[in-house]
Amino acid sequence: MSGVWGKQIEYSIFGESHGEALGIVISGLPVGIKLDLDFIRKEMKRRAPGSSDLVTPRKEEDAFEILSGYFEEHTTGAPLCAIIRNKNTRSSDYNNLRYAMRPGHADYSGRVKYKGFNDFRGSGHFSGRITAPLVFAGAIAKQILASKGIKIVSHVLSIHNIKDTAFDLANFEESLVKKLSSLAFPVIDESIAEDMKQAIRTAKDNKNSVGGVVECAILNMPAGIGDPFFDSIESTLAHLLFSVPAVKGVEFGKGFEISSLTGIEANDPYAIVDGEIRTTSNNNGGIIGGISNGMPIVFKCAIKPTASIGLEQDTIDIVNMKNTKLTVEGRHDPCIVPRVLPVIEAAAAIGILDSYLTSNK
Amino acid sequence: MSGVWGKQIEYSIFGESHGEALGIVISGLPVGIKLDLDFIRKEMKRRAPGSSDLVTPRKEEDAFEILSGYFEEHTTGAPLCAIIRNKNTRSSDYNNLRYAMRPGHADYSGRVKYKGFNDFRGSGHFSGRITAPLVFAGAIAKQILASKGIKIVSHVLSIHNIKDTAFDLANFEESLVKKLSSLAFPVIDESIAEDMKQAIRTAKDNKNSVGGVVECAILNMPAGIGDPFFDSIESTLAHLLFSVPAVKGVEFGKGFEISSLTGIEANDPYAIVDGEIRTTSNNNGGIIGGISNGMPIVFKCAIKPTASIGLEQDTIDIVNMKNTKLTVEGRHDPCIVPRVLPVIEAAAAIGILDSYLTSNK
Amino acid sequence: MSGVWGKQIEYSIFGESHGEALGIVISGLPVGIKLDLDFIRKEMKRRAPGSSDLVTPRKEEDAFEILSGYFEEHTTGAPLCAIIRNKNTRSSDYNNLRYAMRPGHADYSGRVKYKGFNDFRGSGHFSGRITAPLVFAGAIAKQILASKGIKIVSHVLSIHNIKDTAFDLANFEESLVKKLSSLAFPVIDESIAEDMKQAIRTAKDNKNSVGGVVECAILNMPAGIGDPFFDSIESTLAHLLFSVPAVKGVEFGKGFEISSLTGIEANDPYAIVDGEIRTTSNNNGGIIGGISNGMPIVFKCAIKPTASIGLEQDTIDIVNMKNTKLTVEGRHDPCIVPRVLPVIEAAAAIGILDSYLTSNK
Amino acid sequence: MSGVWGKQIEYSIFGESHGEALGIVISGLPVGIKLDLDFIRKEMKRRAPGSSDLVTPRKEEDAFEILSGYFEEHTTGAPLCAIIRNKNTRSSDYNNLRYAMRPGHADYSGRVKYKGFNDFRGSGHFSGRITAPLVFAGAIAKQILASKGIKIVSHVLSIHNIKDTAFDLANFEESLVKKLSSLAFPVIDESIAEDMKQAIRTAKDNKNSVGGVVECAILNMPAGIGDPFFDSIESTLAHLLFSVPAVKGVEFGKGFEISSLTGIEANDPYAIVDGEIRTTSNNNGGIIGGISNGMPIVFKCAIKPTASIGLEQDTIDIVNMKNTKLTVEGRHDPCIVPRVLPVIEAAAAIGILDSYLTSNK
Repeated sequence: MSGVWGKQIEYSIFGESHGEALGIVISGLPVGIKLDLDFIRKEMKRRAPGSSDLVTPRKEEDAFEILSGYFEEHTTGAPLCAIIRNKNTRSSDYNNLRYAMRPGHADYSGRVKYKGFNDFRGSGHFSGRITAPLVFAGAIAKQILASKGIKIVSHVLSIHNIKDTAFDLANFEESLVKKLSSLAFPVIDESIAEDMKQAIRTAKDNKNSVGGVVECAILNMPAGIGDPFFDSIESTLAHLLFSVPAVKGVEFGKGFEISSLTGIEANDPYAIVDGEIRTTSNNNGGIIGGISNGMPIVFKCAIKPTASIGLEQDTIDIVNMKNTKLTVEGRHDPCIVPRVLPVIEAAAAIGILDSYLTSNK
Repeated sequence: MSGVWGKQIEYSIFGESHGEALGIVISGLPVGIKLDLDFIRKEMKRRAPGSSDLVTPRKEEDAFEILSGYFEEHTTGAPLCAIIRNKNTRSSDYNNLRYAMRPGHADYSGRVKYKGFNDFRGSGHFSGRITAPLVFAGAIAKQILASKGIKIVSHVLSIHNIKDTAFDLANFEESLVKKLSSLAFPVIDESIAEDMKQAIRTAKDNKNSVGGVVECAILNMPAGIGDPFFDSIESTLAHLLFSVPAVKGVEFGKGFEISSLTGIEANDPYAIVDGEIRTTSNNNGGIIGGISNGMPIVFKCAIKPTASIGLEQDTIDIVNMKNTKLTVEGRHDPCIVPRVLPVIEAAAAIGILDSYLTSNK
Repeated sequence: MSGVWGKQIEYSIFGESHGEALGIVISGLPVGIKLDLDFIRKEMKRRAPGSSDLVTPRKEEDAFEILSGYFEEHTTGAPLCAIIRNKNTRSSDYNNLRYAMRPGHADYSGRVKYKGFNDFRGSGHFSGRITAPLVFAGAIAKQILASKGIKIVSHVLSIHNIKDTAFDLANFEESLVKKLSSLAFPVIDESIAEDMKQAIRTAKDNKNSVGGVVECAILNMPAGIGDPFFDSIESTLAHLLFSVPAVKGVEFGKGFEISSLTGIEANDPYAIVDGEIRTTSNNNGGIIGGISNGMPIVFKCAIKPTASIGLEQDTIDIVNMKNTKLTVEGRHDPCIVPRVLPVIEAAAAIGILDSYLTSNK
Repeated sequence: MSGVWGKQIEYSIFGESHGEALGIVISGLPVGIKLDLDFIRKEMKRRAPGSSDLVTPRKEEDAFEILSGYFEEHTTGAPLCAIIRNKNTRSSDYNNLRYAMRPGHADYSGRVKYKGFNDFRGSGHFSGRITAPLVFAGAIAKQILASKGIKIVSHVLSIHNIKDTAFDLANFEESLVKKLSSLAFPVIDESIAEDMKQAIRTAKDNKNSVGGVVECAILNMPAGIGDPFFDSIESTLAHLLFSVPAVKGVEFGKGFEISSLTGIEANDPYAIVDGEIRTTSNNNGGIIGGISNGMPIVFKCAIKPTASIGLEQDTIDIVNMKNTKLTVEGRHDPCIVPRVLPVIEAAAAIGILDSYLTSNK
């Protein structure tokens, strides 16, 4: 039952890389929202393949069709279903996947789980393509949050061993937010962008791949959102972020670094500044006791290198139960970090919207 | 609705630090399990305060009473409720908390959320004491998992800046597991234990506190457990782990380090060894595509330094809306890492059991 | 996982007839409600045994203890747990129930489900006593609804073959509501009350039992509450009503009678009366398309005769797998209808509150 | 969030009468089921309009397209989405519905709920057409249940005031089940079928409509399925049955009649017959304490007369807030009972399958 998530709004996701279509049903959407379809398309395009030499050349427009819950340009309040047809599929690339289990992919774990009945073509339901409907839903969540003043912004914190400057956790200047929103490859220190891209191109030339880290901030969060214990904001966001294929770590505020601070260093002192309550540092990333404290919510996600690489790898032939060698064919991203930014933002938007609606019910 | 979690078994948690009792209702437990009450008590004791000079001297036995769902020594299949009475409470310590917001605590975020109606004594529902019923439930989950051969083990990976050796992700020797299970302060490299304890004592002497990192492994996991997307094992475990107060980061396998590897380094090659399918490395921490691959599931949690410290801190007086100074009274842990190990294991046990039951339904 | 219900507020129920205690955890309660404990006690007393010669003489005060989520007379927003200790238990009455399956009771179906591990004393978790915590929770739900003007009232529509006048579906006079709320044995036509009571006493004298029908109305419901399809008001209420032991039928408005009307007779015409929109009849019981239309919500519940009777009955000895005779010992209600009224109202209050909060989120 | 239902398998339904498509996402389906598409089509055809002069002449093939979760003729275990395109739509019929609220329809209650943003054409999401995807899902549930020996059968128990013979609750002959499954208009007493049809034709000629009662049985149920309290089989089935538009009453076994029996009459005595445990009567409809007892589960549903009728009716003009007259145009069913049988069976199949999987996890 892994396809459904949400308390106030329920998202039911479906689809495979090489099936008829992927899509999502969004049940419980607020009524009467005039959807900004151009914004949704723009978000989808950020995730779509084929946009530059840094990503897979698979050509998919990722055009969506809304089947329900939308009438005279507004949400009706009834479940909204959107689908994205698969077009540029080349199933022949995947014939040998019936036998050889690709390292780093869910071929083996999925085969055991699904007893061999899974659609293995292009990783099937495990494909990163399943994030297309998530970005669709995230764009709607972002639009609703924006109407409440809440903004989400992210940047590439690292690619392989090239690092961008991290966010100043306690201070976000409007100019930085604007800059990041306008960049196709968003980094704070623009001087390192070319090095990062070069690291990706080098991986591509080597038939290899690289990973990276995404840093994301949720700005203008009111205090008092989230719930203690099982529905802490950290729990809600981490649940969704770890749904995104390739995410292997999530940390909030200072994250793992906070474990080497002392209490007096880690605690964020409260202060009244210009009549407003805030903290003077933000090591806790805007969340205390699972609940927002009015400071920016900031988190980082570790993205593993793309599992699909052109280099020969050791693996097993599961049908004949023997060790073998495998070279993965097909068109792959040497690094998915640039395309994963809108997915991370979408997951964050969906999670924060649910916490927001729960706390304001 | 933050108090309820679970799909196959639902856990409903309740209680405050200085209220009548804390407890948990466990609905959907398998029928006919002969509960090992001694084991439950042992696990509760690992978490309980007062056991050494490293932790708070607050004396709480954490004795539990089972109210339902248990008959003639076995689970009946009906909801099992256990409660833990609060005894050694000193509410007077908390009188000034009506005004001054403790940095690092949920006083402010909780006050906004609960409009000032929250039980603020000893952090109320936000207290780490809420983890006592979680450990109770986790002990039962552990017992059920053990009957299927699955074991959970953890150690202190770091305290402040003192680091233990990390797990060898792909190889767990039985002797190591036994050793860690027998140590009151479990570390792999026993030579650093005293340094860690000294770091805690130093923090205590300084009226300060320190944090650390816990590393945990789930051993003998069958392959094929977990679900893609929203109910990945990472999502399920992270959801529960981030429920535990003080956890600010969670990573699986190599975690954030995997982001600086290349694909050929990060992918875990499959191999048939002694007739069994395994991977020769375990950078993905036993989870691929959200599903177990039969290797040990390994994760790390960043624990922040205890928020309660005896040093004077800047903060605000929320009633009079002015900046002020605060010195937190009361008996506190200079470091909660030693007491948090059984809590992390409990959260892991509860999460893995749910994934296991879902996959075997 | 049958012990948990609710979307906006989650109720987790537990307990057995002859165990330590029954109780309920209410997670997600609105913050800052000053609980009317006297009202809760009054509702509990309506359900409690021992109040007259019409019901079981088992003496239980059903005194509740609130363990959490309640501070300085108000709800805190954290999970509220209340327990009711079992006191006047006589387990010895139930010794032969290990063998002989009582007709009409869950002894056999429960034994199969729970593989013989269920607490069989006094029906265990299947006992009507499990409705005590439901009435506790319902009293809180009623108080919250009352603060929004919504009232719930019910009466005994029939006992065995003695029938009261039914509600005028479209018109509820305030005086009737007041009268029913004040009667210990609420009927519209007070002249038949004694006949009903006599039918109960006759059943008691005959070591037999009788059933009846309860009719319940939810007044001052705003229009627009409820959801189409899976969360229709009918679905929500019926789900909860059929949880109550002994309920075997639920119908809304005209219910089964509507099936023999024609469309022009069944449709409730809209009209503007005194500037307000209403319907001139209310055959649909205030619900159209699963959503309230502003008219009173009216439903009926069929209550079966108490399964426990003193007459000898045919049954099986499940241990020795042979046919046998059984005479049920113990103290039983010759008719549970009088005690079930507050339970039906509690279920209705809990269901309507959830629909209300969902629609106003 | 009314569009999602299910614990072991989650169903997410969407669509409007005159939108692009209706559909359903089924998440958590068992793996490797070879779907019987012909059977699904046959079930869809039973519900589809245009099949006889008794139902609406709107021509809809209700052809479905499976978009995901289905590969090489088998379910993959990933979410399965099926859609049904709307084709023969005539939106012009509904222009006056912006103003005049049709009695018996959700025009008014839905308008209040959705603040006027609902797709009002053909009742939109409230249309009986939403049951088409339910029948699709029910056909799959039926196939899974059939593989475990469980069968579902129903008949028209009444149309208006014409009554069929009711089921013998405790005895189902195979020949009867076969007969009912083969009849297009299934009745036990075939001699009354023509009277029923004539009652429908008379209603049609009079521009009026009629309702009826459906009786349904679930055969070969093993004992021990279902859960006490919130997830009783009655609760689960009633929840789904009351989702079906036009259902206003649900009763199990003797239903409302049981309320006028005495305990000795109502209790179903257990007996060992031919080495098997059964009850000699089945007044409880195969469910005791919310759990199956191995006898047939039998229930009845009251279906109200079609709300859409050609007769002039009193109602309100909501835009101009005045009383008005309305004549509903368009093509309508004079009686939906014949088409609702497969819908009731589908709801029953979905509910029982969930209880079955929960009890066997």
